[in-house]
Amino acid sequence: MTNRLELRVRYNECDPMGVAHHTVYPVWFEMGRTELLRDGRLSYRDLETRGFLIAVVKLSVQYKRPARYDDTLVLATTITDRGRATIEHAYQLHRDGVLLTTAATTVVCLDRDGRPQQLPDTLRLGD
Amino acid sequence: MTNRLELRVRYNECDPMGVAHHTVYPVWFEMGRTELLRDGRLSYRDLETRGFLIAVVKLSVQYKRPARYDDTLVLATTITDRGRATIEHAYQLHRDGVLLTTAATTVVCLDRDGRPQQLPDTLRLGD
Amino acid sequence: MTNRLELRVRYNECDPMGVAHHTVYPVWFEMGRTELLRDGRLSYRDLETRGFLIAVVKLSVQYKRPARYDDTLVLATTITDRGRATIEHAYQLHRDGVLLTTAATTVVCLDRDGRPQQLPDTLRLGD
Amino acid sequence: MTNRLELRVRYNECDPMGVAHHTVYPVWFEMGRTELLRDGRLSYRDLETRGFLIAVVKLSVQYKRPARYDDTLVLATTITDRGRATIEHAYQLHRDGVLLTTAATTVVCLDRDGRPQQLPDTLRLGD
Repeated sequence: MTNRLELRVRYNECDPMGVAHHTVYPVWFEMGRTELLRDGRLSYRDLETRGFLIAVVKLSVQYKRPARYDDTLVLATTITDRGRATIEHAYQLHRDGVLLTTAATTVVCLDRDGRPQQLPDTLRLGD
Repeated sequence: MTNRLELRVRYNECDPMGVAHHTVYPVWFEMGRTELLRDGRLSYRDLETRGFLIAVVKLSVQYKRPARYDDTLVLATTITDRGRATIEHAYQLHRDGVLLTTAATTVVCLDRDGRPQQLPDTLRLGD
Repeated sequence: MTNRLELRVRYNECDPMGVAHHTVYPVWFEMGRTELLRDGRLSYRDLETRGFLIAVVKLSVQYKRPARYDDTLVLATTITDRGRATIEHAYQLHRDGVLLTTAATTVVCLDRDGRPQQLPDTLRLGD
Repeated sequence: MTNRLELRVRYNECDPMGVAHHTVYPVWFEMGRTELLRDGRLSYRDLETRGFLIAVVKLSVQYKRPARYDDTLVLATTITDRGRATIEHAYQLHRDGVLLTTAATTVVCLDRDGRPQQLPDTLRLGD
């Protein structure tokens, strides 16, 4: 299952080189994860209310081509692996069919005291 | 009582015009409020732990001259008025003695449910 | 003429109080200005390429009710006044018909050296 | 050569879980690179003025323990490898001697048209 999220680059996300600053991409990846959950009729906000906190423990990004202000981008977010308490995602960011960036993250499910806990069944067994 | 905070403009705080983006200044003002509290031997983190949340309800900024990447700026933060539940601050931002920006905010003290509550005595009666 | 922009509150835009941080709202206002331009078949990116830079010189915000993570908000952006080199905008931010925030900005048109210049005709005489 | 930069976690850098959001760390790493350059009597701002732009092409982060609002952190930034047009950095972030985060980046030197170019000698041969 892959979520495709269209997003537009904001002015304040761009730096003096005129391109999207590299620290903004992980913000977009988090939006992709939120929308992927929503595709499965899950809300991260609800998970958090129920005591399942999702924290990023690993992030890697390869920046291939820059994105610019007002560009319309398409972010593809997919799940590549699941553990008892962790999920791995992969990301591909395109503009007009051209690949700009690839990335991967690992998130872990925590309880309110910050200790790892088993993912809720809906997330652990999702397709 | 005035706090003087020295800060350096970060690369990601600057936009394609090569100057600090106007949305970054209120971040600096919040740093000024935190340091002014600390000057009075108060910690905003402790206040929050004790159930006193401080929310900005009013903000106004006049941008006169731009700040640039790697500039060293001096932010002067001062209290201009206090009410039962509110505090007003004024800000002046300088670079090498030249005034770049003036601003004012009103903050209100809230409880954990988001209802206004009287400021703790230490803040209400401060000098 | 009013632009209505729907936007969703991002996780990283929220602070430890669980609400959208007050410094994020001006980012949304800038998005509103960009979309209002686009409604008039103008692109801020094109303006900038042609040497018309638009800088915020005045900002005021009244925060009435908090916005929360994953909220869907509607931002109404309108022009309230025009000068030779300046434009004033007003903003109203709603969630489900409830007014959360009102704001106003003044922007000035600059050339590439940062000096005020007359707005391009399309912007100065716009309806 | 290692730069040690002390930094304090800002309120707006923290999220509803009460910890520094994972997208803020790469902002700090960029500050570390800037200060490491400064230690070598180089200014990134000057490099950019002379037409040497430095872009991040690879980023990886391992988040081990969270940082919190108002924490004082120490970021150690060091160069681990140099190529003709690239530099690799490694980062360690500590609080009170406890390791919170490790990371690595690759940056590439670009000209004003975004094409890779050889690093200036001062950077390529630095110790």
